[in-house]
Amino acid sequence: VCAKCKQSNLRYHFCMEIDTLTIVGVGLIGGSIGLAARQRGLARRIRGVGRSQTSLDKALAVGAIDEGFLDLKAGVAGANVAVFCAPVDRIAEQVLQAAPACAQGALLTDAGSTKCRIVTAVEAELPARVAFVGAHPLAGSEKRGPAHAETHLFQGRWTILTPTPSTDPSALQRAQRFWQALGARVRLMNPHEHDRALAVTSHLPHLLASALAGILPPELCDFTATGFRDTTRVAGGDPELWAAIFEHNQALLLDALGPLENRLAEFRAALAGGDWSTLKSLLVQAKKVRDALGS
Amino acid sequence: VCAKCKQSNLRYHFCMEIDTLTIVGVGLIGGSIGLAARQRGLARRIRGVGRSQTSLDKALAVGAIDEGFLDLKAGVAGANVAVFCAPVDRIAEQVLQAAPACAQGALLTDAGSTKCRIVTAVEAELPARVAFVGAHPLAGSEKRGPAHAETHLFQGRWTILTPTPSTDPSALQRAQRFWQALGARVRLMNPHEHDRALAVTSHLPHLLASALAGILPPELCDFTATGFRDTTRVAGGDPELWAAIFEHNQALLLDALGPLENRLAEFRAALAGGDWSTLKSLLVQAKKVRDALGS
Repeated sequence: VCAKCKQSNLRYHFCMEIDTLTIVGVGLIGGSIGLAARQRGLARRIRGVGRSQTSLDKALAVGAIDEGFLDLKAGVAGANVAVFCAPVDRIAEQVLQAAPACAQGALLTDAGSTKCRIVTAVEAELPARVAFVGAHPLAGSEKRGPAHAETHLFQGRWTILTPTPSTDPSALQRAQRFWQALGARVRLMNPHEHDRALAVTSHLPHLLASALAGILPPELCDFTATGFRDTTRVAGGDPELWAAIFEHNQALLLDALGPLENRLAEFRAALAGGDWSTLKSLLVQAKKVRDALGS
Repeated sequence: VCAKCKQSNLRYHFCMEIDTLTIVGVGLIGGSIGLAARQRGLARRIRGVGRSQTSLDKALAVGAIDEGFLDLKAGVAGANVAVFCAPVDRIAEQVLQAAPACAQGALLTDAGSTKCRIVTAVEAELPARVAFVGAHPLAGSEKRGPAHAETHLFQGRWTILTPTPSTDPSALQRAQRFWQALGARVRLMNPHEHDRALAVTSHLPHLLASALAGILPPELCDFTATGFRDTTRVAGGDPELWAAIFEHNQALLLDALGPLENRLAEFRAALAGGDWSTLKSLLVQAKKVRDALGS
């Protein structure tokens, strides 16, 4: 048992390292950050900023935050750490609006699925009194809202931090410790590397799943089984969020689409030509990759 | 309690309607048929035909069959119902080999993922002493083998029966009752309709998932999360099985690929042109379809 805070779970114990943690955007990701921070004793008080009282009430109800704010500046006033979990097209603006209200020396980080645009926009205007380190936890689902938040969402999953040459090394260390405290494993990449990788591993699958779901004739709905449903699951994600992600990562997503189009052309050629050995070797190679990923 | 067989579950009770049921191919599907038939008291004895003693032993161990046979003719000798669950490229041949050994008037049905080629090949040569009704239960997974068999695999799922003008109406009724007894909901379609529908709802997703898995550079494996894994899950399926399915359904799968290629071209054009309203409407439409399918 910790003498200071009386918590007994010393393995995941951070003894209120942060005085005030503010989570901006209390949806699935923001809510899960609040739950994980609470479970691990990471912050003395957890504040949430939301766009509606309804979502704040839900986040309060599940225990993800202690206090809710509709006003960004009020919610981040005096915060020692602020984490921005809004859709990618709102993060940079919120970070810059919040910066003057946070505590001197505060760490600002985010959970946006794209990094180049956000990091560039933030670094261009951030006051020196606070520090920003871009982050992207590779966790989530097609579900939304604090009601789907999970304490262990980040547990054992990668969170990518995207420092740049102008990132303060001690802020980077604090960001690393913050995300690790939530349970994540941390990798560093530069924002462009991040966006190029995620174009392939996340944005392209979303585009493909949406293309496939979109061409399903309504009369064939009954004839879909788990295969179709798995392959298109992410297409149930929020179109606003994803349109913003695609816009942010336009060039690199187009780059990622090329090899996929080429591979589809190989499948078409093998099918049309009755070249079953090529077709089978394409399937064998895909299975090898997929098996390596696990379930 | 049934006076005849002493079973008490009268809701799903078929009182050994079938004397000998033979399942040819005791993998995930064949094993699940055995388990469902047993649970529902559908057959007095359940025989399995397998290609290896190992798979027969596993099927015996999970209780999917009572007796195992490596020899097809021995396994179907005197069978009143035989169901063929081998890969699609072996079904027609097995049905024709088995037909002379089954009981007079036996019902033969199958679980193949394609129907045109199988039904045509069977109908061309089937002796009149038995009847065949093509079937396809829309259930399964990327997993294989009797160890993954499930009693409730067909419960509430569609099984499509594909009668033709030469199908005997009473055999069709028996086939319908057989698949319903396993828990399935039954729909009738002609073989060509079936293959055209499944090209879109099953074969195309497999092709797409394989294309996407196949282009993942190995160094990006760590950056895949649930989205990539869901979208590519079916690519873990057996390449032999799927190459045979693609070969059987070559023309209709090519037909199904066209609209997908067109839709991807629309995504590319919207992305490249920065036409975010078109992009968003593509995502909105896809989400609408996907939401209608459920989880």
